[in-house]
Amino acid sequence: MTSEYRILSKVSDPSDLRKLRKEDLIVLANELRQFIIDSVSTNPGHLGASLGVVELTIALHYVFNTPYDKIIWDVGHQAYGHKILTGRRDKFHTNRKYKGLSGFPKMSESEYDAFGTGHSSTSISAALGMAIAAERKKENRHIVAVIGDGAMTAGLAFEGMNNAGIQKSNLLVILNDNNISIDPNVGAFKEYLLDITTSRTYNRIKDEIWKALGKISRMGPDARSFAAQLEAGLKSTILDRSSLFEGLNFRYFGPIDGHDLLHLIDVLNDLKKLPGPKLLHCRTIKGKGYKFAEENQTKFHSPGPFIKETGEIIDTSPPGTPPTYQEVFGETMVELARLNDKICGITPAMPTGCALNLMMKEFPDRTFDVGIAEQHAVTFSAGLATQGFIPYCNIYSSFLQRAYDQIIHDVALQNLHVVFCIDRGGLVGSDGATHHGFFDIAFMRNIPNVIVSAPMDEIELRNLLYTAQLGKIKCPISIRYPKGNGIHTDWRKPFEEIEPGKARLISEGKDIAILTFGHPGNYAVKATEILRNEGISPAHYDMRFVSPLDEEVLHSVFKKFKKVVTVEDGILKGGFGSAIIEFMTSHGYHAEIRRLGIPDYFVEHGTQEELTAECGFDVEGIVRTVREMVLRSTKKNYNIDNLNIIPKFNRVFPGKK
Amino acid sequence: MTSEYRILSKVSDPSDLRKLRKEDLIVLANELRQFIIDSVSTNPGHLGASLGVVELTIALHYVFNTPYDKIIWDVGHQAYGHKILTGRRDKFHTNRKYKGLSGFPKMSESEYDAFGTGHSSTSISAALGMAIAAERKKENRHIVAVIGDGAMTAGLAFEGMNNAGIQKSNLLVILNDNNISIDPNVGAFKEYLLDITTSRTYNRIKDEIWKALGKISRMGPDARSFAAQLEAGLKSTILDRSSLFEGLNFRYFGPIDGHDLLHLIDVLNDLKKLPGPKLLHCRTIKGKGYKFAEENQTKFHSPGPFIKETGEIIDTSPPGTPPTYQEVFGETMVELARLNDKICGITPAMPTGCALNLMMKEFPDRTFDVGIAEQHAVTFSAGLATQGFIPYCNIYSSFLQRAYDQIIHDVALQNLHVVFCIDRGGLVGSDGATHHGFFDIAFMRNIPNVIVSAPMDEIELRNLLYTAQLGKIKCPISIRYPKGNGIHTDWRKPFEEIEPGKARLISEGKDIAILTFGHPGNYAVKATEILRNEGISPAHYDMRFVSPLDEEVLHSVFKKFKKVVTVEDGILKGGFGSAIIEFMTSHGYHAEIRRLGIPDYFVEHGTQEELTAECGFDVEGIVRTVREMVLRSTKKNYNIDNLNIIPKFNRVFPGKK
Repeated sequence: MTSEYRILSKVSDPSDLRKLRKEDLIVLANELRQFIIDSVSTNPGHLGASLGVVELTIALHYVFNTPYDKIIWDVGHQAYGHKILTGRRDKFHTNRKYKGLSGFPKMSESEYDAFGTGHSSTSISAALGMAIAAERKKENRHIVAVIGDGAMTAGLAFEGMNNAGIQKSNLLVILNDNNISIDPNVGAFKEYLLDITTSRTYNRIKDEIWKALGKISRMGPDARSFAAQLEAGLKSTILDRSSLFEGLNFRYFGPIDGHDLLHLIDVLNDLKKLPGPKLLHCRTIKGKGYKFAEENQTKFHSPGPFIKETGEIIDTSPPGTPPTYQEVFGETMVELARLNDKICGITPAMPTGCALNLMMKEFPDRTFDVGIAEQHAVTFSAGLATQGFIPYCNIYSSFLQRAYDQIIHDVALQNLHVVFCIDRGGLVGSDGATHHGFFDIAFMRNIPNVIVSAPMDEIELRNLLYTAQLGKIKCPISIRYPKGNGIHTDWRKPFEEIEPGKARLISEGKDIAILTFGHPGNYAVKATEILRNEGISPAHYDMRFVSPLDEEVLHSVFKKFKKVVTVEDGILKGGFGSAIIEFMTSHGYHAEIRRLGIPDYFVEHGTQEELTAECGFDVEGIVRTVREMVLRSTKKNYNIDNLNIIPKFNRVFPGKK
Repeated sequence: MTSEYRILSKVSDPSDLRKLRKEDLIVLANELRQFIIDSVSTNPGHLGASLGVVELTIALHYVFNTPYDKIIWDVGHQAYGHKILTGRRDKFHTNRKYKGLSGFPKMSESEYDAFGTGHSSTSISAALGMAIAAERKKENRHIVAVIGDGAMTAGLAFEGMNNAGIQKSNLLVILNDNNISIDPNVGAFKEYLLDITTSRTYNRIKDEIWKALGKISRMGPDARSFAAQLEAGLKSTILDRSSLFEGLNFRYFGPIDGHDLLHLIDVLNDLKKLPGPKLLHCRTIKGKGYKFAEENQTKFHSPGPFIKETGEIIDTSPPGTPPTYQEVFGETMVELARLNDKICGITPAMPTGCALNLMMKEFPDRTFDVGIAEQHAVTFSAGLATQGFIPYCNIYSSFLQRAYDQIIHDVALQNLHVVFCIDRGGLVGSDGATHHGFFDIAFMRNIPNVIVSAPMDEIELRNLLYTAQLGKIKCPISIRYPKGNGIHTDWRKPFEEIEPGKARLISEGKDIAILTFGHPGNYAVKATEILRNEGISPAHYDMRFVSPLDEEVLHSVFKKFKKVVTVEDGILKGGFGSAIIEFMTSHGYHAEIRRLGIPDYFVEHGTQEELTAECGFDVEGIVRTVREMVLRSTKKNYNIDNLNIIPKFNRVFPGKK
């Protein structure tokens, strides 16, 4: 490594960085960029965002006294350079791997990670809290939030700016403006930034005014004194308040070139001395310094493994791999939009990730990318629904948490027919704890009026999407599905209606019933095969709906079986299994029941297989549980204290002894 | 009525209004104002906001063709005049009463209520959905959102503006700027509005520029041509884009006097003809036309009954009434802040409602009103907590839904010591479905790392607040309590530490165990008394914590009792009772169990007593349930199908047959 990374190899933490000569900083930037490309090409992760802030990262750690000073990286996937420069270079090959480094800043991982950030737009609010704390403690600590232009459109960022503008605390917000989040940005705010960075308005008028003042001055003594007067007025008002940010009491600086390292250092040094809330507008290029990433920014946001020399993305799925749920969703939406002109598609900034870009291409009038704005996505959908449209609002499970109130207050309470397509429900893999869809089963199922469903495979997904627009369902409905590949290669079957609230029997059995919700049903299918070979006979039901439950099926299950296992890819507390035991106890049944799913802690990152195994609801977990329940009762060595849900890994449960 | 309300009595719906001569409209405004005062003085509700928009309400219905055109009243408590003019005058005496009119716009109540609004800042997003729907359907429909300046600071409003600015649909946003929401507004945005409405900056510079241009012109032919040039530049850029709204692509008009009815009508008629997104800035006075309400806007936001001649607010609580939980919270916070200088108080725009205004007075440096911005309130608290402060973040249960993601992602995942004070947990009474704290028990208890508690009375509330800052608890903790009066007059007892996760036995018994969470424990105390007189012996445990559960107590309960009743003031699905049956089934116990709480529909408005009775978890509901369970089993006429949770009122459950 030392030969390739002459300077980088000497930087163990930012104190080393601060000893470097300025010429060496430029070399360091190149090496850091190369290190990120080398690393991410073989160990996949987020590429473009981190390449875009290489100079900014170095400049910040050079100018500010981290970790005493605090840098908060909004949507932490821009923080690879930061991680590499803050003592994690040699561990960086474990990035996003099971038990390895997190792909996002994480307070428990390093004192340099001032705040954990995976969801967007949290940095200004958190930074303001830190800035006020420093002020109240009379600490001369600098607080810097680095936030992308895409993240700026989320309501939380605006709330933070609005409050920071009045608190007057020392706080530097760096607007990392690359005109793209994952997909190209949308919204009036983006246009506003374009306006002030191109010469179209802001710069033109700025120049004109200065020129005008010069001209006026030359017209004589009277004019000169007037010009001075006017200049003072203009400076203190128009130029200082012409920006949206100045309207919120932030002093606005920029735009400057975010790749000019030495200039960045000078500017940051100047800003360090200025009190109060300030915003520095940096123009950067996402993927900077790696041609292929600059040219295809959406693809290289998180490209998977690639050949660094050619930019060729390596397809790691073996031939014959079924498509992803996302692909099936995207293509199905196009088919349905052709059938029904009331259907609209809504996504908050994830058209490529959720594959609604396909519908956007064919039906641009009925497909809306509203930017990073989950709350608005839902209430906007509600507005469309009041007028007879059928909005399919696609939001990742963990981001849908942002729109929880809007689901309740704007959709469910008014019983509006919005179709929530909950993507990335359950464990998502290497993005880890910030991105897992832990909670949606639990938080959707207890909202009155809402039909809550999960397809077991892509064909069921298609059929649920189809059913949602047939006209019989007039209430809100949610359809949740996981990240990643389905199970069928031959999935484009004719649509079939699914009756809301109807479960289906996958296989008959006599010893025990396995009730599944969503894709873990496929684990149960495999587990059932294994168990049958061992002479155990489980029945398997795909419940499909957690609200309303199929009471008819459940009555027959609890009448027939004294042992029941539930399986879900979601938090166990309050989730699908809880719905089943609510039914069971409300109806006076007394089966022995075990609930498999995500236990009561924040599961971290790894492959979906590793994490599912950790939680104990993979094929082996189901087999083990069923085997133990069935065999133990025949041996009569029953001990109630062993009936706890114990995941395979021996973890300490918060709140448990 | 006819004598007092000469014109108003003739207006059965807006079509009558549109037939009136303009002079009569002015009379109507006075009568409508008087009607609201008459009505709200005897049947309490929201006063100030509706008085402030009397002229606006009349003008809107006069100019626009409602209900074809749509008016969306943000935070619907400004909509009394709208209700009275749209066919609900004669029912208005039932406002906020059980089975009466809702205090907020409600789509199911009237076709004039275009969108249900109780929570703030939803109107722009919903209006945009309607505007786009109209455009896509080629309907020439006007959509108007009326939003207060306080509501504008919430992130959702900004998200809506940002998206509307790019969609270019016909949409009129009326900014009802009265410089107050419930408490006086805070934030940079408020200062911004003040700036552009007072002469301090905006108007001054506007004037100066025009004057300057005049002066320059008089300097000679060269100067004249230059001035013309400059004027064009200034007009098209600075003056048109100097506003924050123009920065978001809205055409900005105003500020105008929102009480000048005829001028309002003219302006609205003009704006009707302009395409695209526009914002009309109206200055209004909250409480306008009623001296006492103008003079004390916070008190008269929702004053309770008052003597309209004197403005005296009638104290309806009999002497010796215990204080509210809110008063106890507020006073306790002051005591604790004196003991511990790390404690901070955070409220999103509810300092008076939650009584944090008391702490604000004594500790202004440690008390933060962040405006209507629940998301920011939580992430800001997280930022403070990273630096060793102990933020007590007080948010009403139903508004905390807005910060659900921030609780998970910014606090719990990072295991930060934030104290969530969840006010108005459970049924709140006359504010109804939008404001009930239905969900917080369910949505808090399944978040890992969080201690979730509810005090049974004010003394317990004090002790939990005290315990939260002693230093032993280092994780997030929530403390939820209801709206309204406690049970003790002598509540200011010395603080006592409560061990997290410890339940307490209220009374011993042998036939059945009653497990309660929070204030319904007091219903159970009364129920127990009644039942003992009937010869039934229930044991009563105040569980205090739903996460972690007191497993020791629960083991002893399930070992001793075969019948258990749980009681909570929250949604049953996934709530406290579910936590108990999760424990029960995980440990192989098989008690007969009934869960009392809020069933699976949106309970509407009424007194807390009426609603608790409707749900069946009041004293009588507990008595009835216990009696039935105990007596029935002794009579052996057990029928499992009757074990469903059936509320007293015979309601149709969505999703049930």
